[in-house]
Amino acid sequence: MKKIIAVCGSNQGDKSLTKEVLKIAERVGYLIAEKEGILICGGLGGIMEAVAKGAKEKGGITVGILPYDKSKANKYIDIPIGTNLGFYRNYIIVNSADAIIGICGRWGTLNEISIALALGKPVILISTSKGISELLSKKEILKYFEEKPYIAETPEQAVDLAFNLIGK
Amino acid sequence: MKKIIAVCGSNQGDKSLTKEVLKIAERVGYLIAEKEGILICGGLGGIMEAVAKGAKEKGGITVGILPYDKSKANKYIDIPIGTNLGFYRNYIIVNSADAIIGICGRWGTLNEISIALALGKPVILISTSKGISELLSKKEILKYFEEKPYIAETPEQAVDLAFNLIGK
Amino acid sequence: MKKIIAVCGSNQGDKSLTKEVLKIAERVGYLIAEKEGILICGGLGGIMEAVAKGAKEKGGITVGILPYDKSKANKYIDIPIGTNLGFYRNYIIVNSADAIIGICGRWGTLNEISIALALGKPVILISTSKGISELLSKKEILKYFEEKPYIAETPEQAVDLAFNLIGK
Amino acid sequence: MKKIIAVCGSNQGDKSLTKEVLKIAERVGYLIAEKEGILICGGLGGIMEAVAKGAKEKGGITVGILPYDKSKANKYIDIPIGTNLGFYRNYIIVNSADAIIGICGRWGTLNEISIALALGKPVILISTSKGISELLSKKEILKYFEEKPYIAETPEQAVDLAFNLIGK
Repeated sequence: MKKIIAVCGSNQGDKSLTKEVLKIAERVGYLIAEKEGILICGGLGGIMEAVAKGAKEKGGITVGILPYDKSKANKYIDIPIGTNLGFYRNYIIVNSADAIIGICGRWGTLNEISIALALGKPVILISTSKGISELLSKKEILKYFEEKPYIAETPEQAVDLAFNLIGK
Repeated sequence: MKKIIAVCGSNQGDKSLTKEVLKIAERVGYLIAEKEGILICGGLGGIMEAVAKGAKEKGGITVGILPYDKSKANKYIDIPIGTNLGFYRNYIIVNSADAIIGICGRWGTLNEISIALALGKPVILISTSKGISELLSKKEILKYFEEKPYIAETPEQAVDLAFNLIGK
Repeated sequence: MKKIIAVCGSNQGDKSLTKEVLKIAERVGYLIAEKEGILICGGLGGIMEAVAKGAKEKGGITVGILPYDKSKANKYIDIPIGTNLGFYRNYIIVNSADAIIGICGRWGTLNEISIALALGKPVILISTSKGISELLSKKEILKYFEEKPYIAETPEQAVDLAFNLIGK
Repeated sequence: MKKIIAVCGSNQGDKSLTKEVLKIAERVGYLIAEKEGILICGGLGGIMEAVAKGAKEKGGITVGILPYDKSKANKYIDIPIGTNLGFYRNYIIVNSADAIIGICGRWGTLNEISIALALGKPVILISTSKGISELLSKKEILKYFEEKPYIAETPEQAVDLAFNLIGK
């Protein structure tokens, strides 16, 4: 069965979403598709759109778990799931995934990362992508937690690590 | 955007699941794929497996919204979503769909049909497929409800009606 | 620990909600409080308001699990829980209860009853209260299902049966 | 209508849960009850048990939103709601509350705090209670977020602030 990789990150409107950060997301999507993983994400803009765009460039499958109406899905989403659950949909993204990659992010991404770690799922943060992914990569932060995320510096490291951790 | 059709019906173990009833489900799956719809269902056995099998015979895309672990998905599911939500996942199936087709079914299917009708989504029941789909096709039952399901007698009627109702 | 009894039934706007039917709900609420049960319901109008009114007349505790904002709770609700979950909140009502009593009802109530029976929870329907509680009391309907609800004719029968079934 | 205050914090097993931290939680519960607020929490051990204990000392009402079975509620919970939703129940706690107070905490508490802030609900963290409540009180952390929690140093400050913010 194909592996499912969740990518969590900021929606559009986050000032940390520079071109460089969006390029990281696009590259992550591309690499997930290259390894024949299914991408799952929140289906909206910002990181979610960039990662789905990258996956489609390589012919991958993209699933968007939307907070309300599926018509809000970005144009790179193949399978838009309109949950009508609002932020609760964050859990479905995390529960559905074999591994979670965090890129940039604010409270919503922190919500997804924290639930993944509370559930014991493998989480990889890209420390060079700003936002809470940068924040949670710091040693003085991580000492507060027993379960720790993995830290990667590049898209290649993050995707390789994700697939290695889940056995492919 | 491709249309999403949910098919709801009995899991394996229902004595009403005769060969004829499973053939109806398989045919419905085939026809949904032929019209380029995405099939969404509960991802388990019985009707869910037969309908996904039919969709894959025609090269369609199949999404399974599982109650707990995605490893329980039947082998015809392309995208298994492990919600860890138990029966709550019924709502996600219904919320994600443009139209809902009911085949056979017991309390669980009635749960999905009832939420779809309470939400005002188009529901088509196949009256020849036994179970609650037969039951809810009866006039003396339907008089109890203001919002009523559509009734079809064959897979062709059901799938044609579903796509006509949602504008394709 | 006090027992929790869910009462499910029509919201205001259902034409079946006659004075007699509302009196049944009010009496059920009163009797639940008399037996020191906690009443849980959907918190809105119609049956939900009548049953909560009855429970407060006898000094009981009333919990309302609201679909969205807790400000929509009727005035007899002590503890309004605003879930922001829409119809998904039906599951929480059912999951929280030791036993479920159905009074009148349409698709929404059928949704709650069906999930309770699928989960194997004890369900008691008052056959004299119209709506789906009357419908599902009929033998020709019940033969479609393996798990069956209990049928009561009066509030006293229903509440006695509920507490007997759950061991108080 | 009475105000509902959620208190989020570590379950038992967290090494940061010293006697002093548990005393903070107990005092917060007492003060919420004194102001006639309804306490809502996750219903389990650690901070959840200490805060409920404090509320009952002052005769308050305590609601526990449990992840699965309500039989797991601590003995100070008046209204145990067994959601069968696992960690998803965190959202219900947050959605139900007028204000959220954080005490100590790990990933699960961070999950609740992050969703509250993403939703725009008022959040007050007690900076002297260790764990993520201490962590998120730091200026170098808070600069990562636009929406910020309020920071209190004592139970009195936290509860006063909560009620002031929500208009009582």
